[in-house]
Amino acid sequence: MPFDPLTLRYDAAGLIPAIAQDATSGQVLMMAWMNADAVARTLATGRVTYWSRSRQAFWIKGETSGHVQELVEFRIDCDRDCLLVRVDQTGPACHTGRQSCFYTLVDGSGETVTAAPMVG
Amino acid sequence: MPFDPLTLRYDAAGLIPAIAQDATSGQVLMMAWMNADAVARTLATGRVTYWSRSRQAFWIKGETSGHVQELVEFRIDCDRDCLLVRVDQTGPACHTGRQSCFYTLVDGSGETVTAAPMVG
Repeated sequence: MPFDPLTLRYDAAGLIPAIAQDATSGQVLMMAWMNADAVARTLATGRVTYWSRSRQAFWIKGETSGHVQELVEFRIDCDRDCLLVRVDQTGPACHTGRQSCFYTLVDGSGETVTAAPMVG
Repeated sequence: MPFDPLTLRYDAAGLIPAIAQDATSGQVLMMAWMNADAVARTLATGRVTYWSRSRQAFWIKGETSGHVQELVEFRIDCDRDCLLVRVDQTGPACHTGRQSCFYTLVDGSGETVTAAPMVG
């Protein structure tokens, strides 16, 4: 039976969180949001597409920057209210130029930036 | 400077999504929510503690089941509105008994369950 994006559980704004993970390294790259149409577009095109809450528009990851995410695996969690997209990431996933958005480590001494922007 | 959980960005309900990743295997285990107090408790105790939206109560992961998450690394993303906790997971992370909540794969043929509950 074909997958129906409307069977997922969305929040009051019609959104579901999507975690992007590098399919090769396993690194968690970012978290963003999809609506049902973005889910459908991601599955249909193989190009990961989010919903931008700030712009209120589809956000085809990398459309402007070239830092695209090619879909490798699309997974849903047990509660059907969170997505895991395993991707082939071209260039950095983070808008700061870093591979992952999760470059800030917190420990007893405070915050430490653990990665530099990628070069080239 | 010590880390202040109030410097994170929470949603209208005072919550921030937290992705749990197995620190050894890199497997993404689950996503749940924390409030500022859960963030503080997680950092202070080293035992990952969420906020249960259904129970409206702290949820010390594994307190009932024994399937605890020992904190290895606590990371925040570039927008300070998502957390990545890298953990030592005891037993399955998922309430279905599976290692990860993301055991359902979606592709052109529909949904496929890719993991069985852990035994023992």
